[in-house]
Amino acid sequence: MSKPYVLGIDIGGTNTVFGIVDARGHVVASDSIKTQKHADFDSYISELHAEVMRLLKANDAENEIQGIGIGAPNANYYTGEIQNTPNLPWGKGIVPIAERVSREFGGIPVAVTNDANAAALGEMTYGAARGMKDFIMITLGTGVGSGIVVNGQLVYGHDGFAGELGHVIMKRNNGRVCGCGRTGCLEAYCSATGVARTAREFLELRSDPSTLRNLDVELITSKDVYDAAIAGDKLAKEIFEYTATILGEALADMVAFSSPQAIILFGGLAKSGDLLLKPLRETFEKSLFPIFRGKTKIILSELKESDAAVLGASALGWEAKFRTETPAAQFASAPSAAAEEV
Amino acid sequence: MSKPYVLGIDIGGTNTVFGIVDARGHVVASDSIKTQKHADFDSYISELHAEVMRLLKANDAENEIQGIGIGAPNANYYTGEIQNTPNLPWGKGIVPIAERVSREFGGIPVAVTNDANAAALGEMTYGAARGMKDFIMITLGTGVGSGIVVNGQLVYGHDGFAGELGHVIMKRNNGRVCGCGRTGCLEAYCSATGVARTAREFLELRSDPSTLRNLDVELITSKDVYDAAIAGDKLAKEIFEYTATILGEALADMVAFSSPQAIILFGGLAKSGDLLLKPLRETFEKSLFPIFRGKTKIILSELKESDAAVLGASALGWEAKFRTETPAAQFASAPSAAAEEV
Repeated sequence: MSKPYVLGIDIGGTNTVFGIVDARGHVVASDSIKTQKHADFDSYISELHAEVMRLLKANDAENEIQGIGIGAPNANYYTGEIQNTPNLPWGKGIVPIAERVSREFGGIPVAVTNDANAAALGEMTYGAARGMKDFIMITLGTGVGSGIVVNGQLVYGHDGFAGELGHVIMKRNNGRVCGCGRTGCLEAYCSATGVARTAREFLELRSDPSTLRNLDVELITSKDVYDAAIAGDKLAKEIFEYTATILGEALADMVAFSSPQAIILFGGLAKSGDLLLKPLRETFEKSLFPIFRGKTKIILSELKESDAAVLGASALGWEAKFRTETPAAQFASAPSAAAEEV
Repeated sequence: MSKPYVLGIDIGGTNTVFGIVDARGHVVASDSIKTQKHADFDSYISELHAEVMRLLKANDAENEIQGIGIGAPNANYYTGEIQNTPNLPWGKGIVPIAERVSREFGGIPVAVTNDANAAALGEMTYGAARGMKDFIMITLGTGVGSGIVVNGQLVYGHDGFAGELGHVIMKRNNGRVCGCGRTGCLEAYCSATGVARTAREFLELRSDPSTLRNLDVELITSKDVYDAAIAGDKLAKEIFEYTATILGEALADMVAFSSPQAIILFGGLAKSGDLLLKPLRETFEKSLFPIFRGKTKIILSELKESDAAVLGASALGWEAKFRTETPAAQFASAPSAAAEEV
């Protein structure tokens, strides 16, 4: 009989969250460590292993883990590596995370992918996309990420990096500078930071009154804009409409690609309710190529935000196939000293 | 043993071309009928059946056909129907082409898809995409079509209409009116008609000399622009550069979606050589999200243009699964009189 649990590990720039997940998508137990504390990969892996083992033991699950799924920025499903990730302290160069984690955990199969792909898998396995074979997951956080499912399979592309829909170009002239070094990317407009940038632009270029003018313009966040809009501020509402228009046009172009049954939104901005969703759905529907109209739903994630990252990563654990050939030790309580990966 | 041939049928607004194809992609024999001659679907099917039977008999292939693949505008793989196609004389409403053709041909399995998807399948089965699991086919003809392959499978989407990349929006302000009723579509710029429109715009807005000014501006074709550019006309060359720039930006966005190993160009404009390809590859490479740079090739179709449509359609025949439940007659020499589909 296959083992009843998978382990989901979500590696973020600040924290690494991990949890034991059962087949129904219930997070049995979870905990976290500080990613930022470790400049060195060995030291990071050492603490991760120790803390995960502690959690497994506390839940009598040391021998009940079928696979480990890891979500991390720039993680490549095909190679099992994290590749050139400046926002992880040990993320420069090529980090063979799947092999190393598998070895530390006695040869358990491990699979990795990036955070947005993990979110899409989580949604398909446990959330709003259950039963869907074609959908697109859009994560609206600090950046804009995406995970695309076609024919029931995650789209990885020939190199493992498919699904960078936050970086399609929405403004081909005078577009905003994006973190990727180009200009006009969707992410520069429709992320939380994009909304804050729009607020600063609107406040500078316009003269109509707004409660946002009471704040330090350089420190305005998307949350400030949301609060002002909810309180009825006209300019703040228009910031959401502007964001929704660009996002709606972008999503309509995505439909021309894969004609998904649904586009699922996740992340902070997705929780803005009708402030975003109403103008978004209007622009989206109007912008669609005629044969696609009225067919693709825009819906919200059904995963609890606190669990979503771990659930998404864990979903990958059920199908994990990568196994190290040379496990360090069967559930050793301390990590191996081998450090050739770093 | 499975039968050695498939039948490929390419239904165009003017002609319907059909051919007997073997497993190596050799067109054993082919012929055509005039689509335009038939205002009525029954009469069309009747002539198609008679002429295909004649070709099969002449090649001793009546009992050697494993499946029939059909490429047609707005043809839906899932339903086997042609849906609302004004440019086929009998194409209004829903035409259950797969069922009807299977019935006429004694129950042989039939599969249908649109022309660009068929081109992608042809390229994957017999052409430049052999061995590729992730690629995008772009057809640059009167319009711009696309067929997308992900994980070795054609992307049909939830409704069978995925892959309308000619209708992603490239100009969000003051874009050209497109045949689809919206503005700014890729097709309005990078099709043969788009090139001719660019020529008319350039000639009207600019005053520099060009041999194109010797032609009736309303009748200029992309072929005229090509001939002028080849002869060294500066304005004509700039028309190709303009076209290539928009196409290169569009293709770069497509890579952010599925990260294909190659983008394969097919159709009249694709034969413009370096006039198009050189500036296209430059813009493409420059426009890519950094992690995709240097990885995706832009290449030309390897199928002979005269055979490509039939080959593409035929490729679908090998995997055709749709069979009518009630074949009209085993290879009847005249089509059934039943006409409930029309």
